[in-house]
Amino acid sequence: MLTVNAYAAPSATEPLVKTTIQRRDLGPKDVLIEIAYAGICHSDIHTVRGDWGPITYPQVVGHEIVGHVTEVGSDVTKHRVGDRVGVGCMVNSCGECEQCLAGQEQYCLEGNIQTYNGVDPADGTITQGGYAQAVVVDEGFVLRVPESLDIEKVAPLLCAGITTYSPLRRWNAGPGTKVAVVGMGGLGHMAVKIAVALGADVTVLSQTTAKREDSLRYGATAHYATNDAATFDELASTFDLIINTVSAKIDMGAYLGLLAVKGTLVNVGAPADPLEVPVFQLIMAGRSWAGSAIGGIAETQEMLDFCAEHGILPETELVSAEQINDAYERVLASDVRYRFVIDAKTFA
Amino acid sequence: MLTVNAYAAPSATEPLVKTTIQRRDLGPKDVLIEIAYAGICHSDIHTVRGDWGPITYPQVVGHEIVGHVTEVGSDVTKHRVGDRVGVGCMVNSCGECEQCLAGQEQYCLEGNIQTYNGVDPADGTITQGGYAQAVVVDEGFVLRVPESLDIEKVAPLLCAGITTYSPLRRWNAGPGTKVAVVGMGGLGHMAVKIAVALGADVTVLSQTTAKREDSLRYGATAHYATNDAATFDELASTFDLIINTVSAKIDMGAYLGLLAVKGTLVNVGAPADPLEVPVFQLIMAGRSWAGSAIGGIAETQEMLDFCAEHGILPETELVSAEQINDAYERVLASDVRYRFVIDAKTFA
Repeated sequence: MLTVNAYAAPSATEPLVKTTIQRRDLGPKDVLIEIAYAGICHSDIHTVRGDWGPITYPQVVGHEIVGHVTEVGSDVTKHRVGDRVGVGCMVNSCGECEQCLAGQEQYCLEGNIQTYNGVDPADGTITQGGYAQAVVVDEGFVLRVPESLDIEKVAPLLCAGITTYSPLRRWNAGPGTKVAVVGMGGLGHMAVKIAVALGADVTVLSQTTAKREDSLRYGATAHYATNDAATFDELASTFDLIINTVSAKIDMGAYLGLLAVKGTLVNVGAPADPLEVPVFQLIMAGRSWAGSAIGGIAETQEMLDFCAEHGILPETELVSAEQINDAYERVLASDVRYRFVIDAKTFA
Repeated sequence: MLTVNAYAAPSATEPLVKTTIQRRDLGPKDVLIEIAYAGICHSDIHTVRGDWGPITYPQVVGHEIVGHVTEVGSDVTKHRVGDRVGVGCMVNSCGECEQCLAGQEQYCLEGNIQTYNGVDPADGTITQGGYAQAVVVDEGFVLRVPESLDIEKVAPLLCAGITTYSPLRRWNAGPGTKVAVVGMGGLGHMAVKIAVALGADVTVLSQTTAKREDSLRYGATAHYATNDAATFDELASTFDLIINTVSAKIDMGAYLGLLAVKGTLVNVGAPADPLEVPVFQLIMAGRSWAGSAIGGIAETQEMLDFCAEHGILPETELVSAEQINDAYERVLASDVRYRFVIDAKTFA
C-alpha cells in the first residue's frame, strides 16, 4: 500500500482538509500515476455536500486528473513509465456487458465504478479521487494525454471535455448545423470550443451578456441573455441541437421552443428536482429531449486527440491545495472563468 | 357551393347535432370526395369540448376520412373520378418551406391547415371535418387507399395509423428491436400491429391485463399491466423504443426507466398539463424523450401501402350518425375495441 497526501471532505458541512489516504498495491493491470493537476468540477461539490444523497466520509473527490505514469503492473501493455496520462470520471466497469463491449463503459449495465465515491469491486473500499498526490487505476481506464496540450490546463477535458464532446458527436454537430449552448461555465465553454471546432454555427445562451466577449472569442457567432424574454421570441424554432449544461431548474417549455423541427435538447447537467415539460412542445415539431453522461473510454481518447489536433484547451485558473475551499465558494457563485485546476505539487 | 349534411358540435357542452354545411366550389387543384366512412378519434372529442382551447362553433370534426372521388378540378392529375381515396389530419400547408419541401407537411413552418378547426387560407373560413357526406380537398392532401383494404375499416389508418407508423419508422423499429406500446386503444392497437409487421419484438403496457388476448392476437409477445408496480421492476432497462399513446398524466420516471441504454420514449398523445420528468433517468442511460405528430403526406401514402401489403387494418365498430354522441361517451370510458367508424350513408 502507498500512503499519499490528499484533501478530503470530513463531512457534508465541513471544509476539505489535508489528510493522507492509502492507494492499493499495483495489480497486474494497474498503473500508478503521480498526479500533476486535478480539475475542480461542480460535481465534486455536489458530492461532498451530499446534494446527490448521503456518502461515506472522509471522501477525496476529483475526476479530472492528469499526471505521469511512475509504475506499471506486470501485465500492463497500454502505458509505460513516464507517459503523460489522464483519468476521468470512472476507473472501472464490468467489461463484459453489451455496453462495455460497445465501448460505452459509462453506461455499463452493472454500473461503472466512479473515480470517487464508488465501491471498488476488488476490495469493497470507497474509491478516492484526484485531489491527491497519486492514484492507482486499471490501465483500461487510463487515457493518453497528447504532449501538445498544456499540462497545466488539460485536466478539465477529462470531464467537462468529454461530457460535451460526446453529445455533440452523437447528435452530429458539424457544418450546417445550428447549435446552442445553455450555460457558459466549465462545461459550457468547452461545448462552445468543441462545437466550433466541429464546424457548427454556435450560439451561447447565458443568463446575462457579461460573457459575450468570451463567447465570440471562442468562436460562437452569437451570445444571447436568457434573462431577456425577447431572446426566446427571436430564437424560436432555430436550433438543431441544444446542449444544456445548467443543472438548475429551467423553463423547459421555453427552451424546447428554441429547437427547430426534429431538433434535440440534451441535458448534461442534472437538476436534483424533476423538470416540468409541456408535451406539446415536443410533439408539434417532432422534437426530442435527451440526457447524456460523459463518454466511453475510446471516445474520451478520441476527444483528447481531437482537442490536440484543434488546439482546444479549457480556460483555467490555477489554485493551490489550500485554496480549494475558497475555489468551491467561487464555483458556487459562478465566479470562475472557467475551471479551477489544482496544482498537485501543493498536496506535498 | 355544395350543401351537404353533417354532424356538428353547437358548443363545447352540447351533443353533436345534424346540420348542413357548405363545401367550396372546386378550385383547379381540388378534389370532391363523397365520404363513405369517417373514424372517431379522441382528438375530435378534445377539440369540440374545448379541452385544447376555445374554438369557433358550430364545428364539424373528423379527420379519418375515406370515400370516392366524384369530381376533380381542371388541373388535378393525381386522382380521377371513381378513385378510392382518403384524407387525414391536414388538408393543406404552405408548400414552400423547408419542411413542406422535405415532405414533412405536418411540421410546416407556417403551420399546416388542419382538416377541421383550421383556418382555410383561401377564404378565411374554419375548416370542417369528415362527419359529413362530402368534402373538398386539395389533391396534394388526398391519399390513394388501396382496394385490398376493407373500406369499412380503413379510415382510422389516416390518423391512428400514420401517427404510430411515423415514429416506429423514424426510430427504426424492426428485427432485433424491442418496442413497447403504452396504452391499448385506438392508437395503441395500431402501433402493435404495425410494429409487429415491421419485425419488432412488441410488448403492450396497458392499465390492466383485460386486453392481453387481443395484444397477443395482434402479434405482441407480451402484455403487462401498468397498475402492477412489479411490471416496472421486471421490465427495467428493456426497450429500445416506447410509443406512448396515452394522453393522461403518467409517471415519466417509471416509464423512462423501462428504456434500455440510448432508448427513446415517444409521446404521440399529448396531456394538457406538463409532465414532471426526473432528469437523471435521461442522463444515466443516454435516453431520449421525443414527440411525434402524425406524418407527412408521402409517408402517409407509404403507410397505407405498407398496411395493404401486410393486411393491416384497425379493429373497428361501425356506428350510425345518430350514435356519435353515445360513441363519444364510450371512447371516454375506454369502452371500444378499438375505433368507432361512422357509416357516412347515415348522414343522409
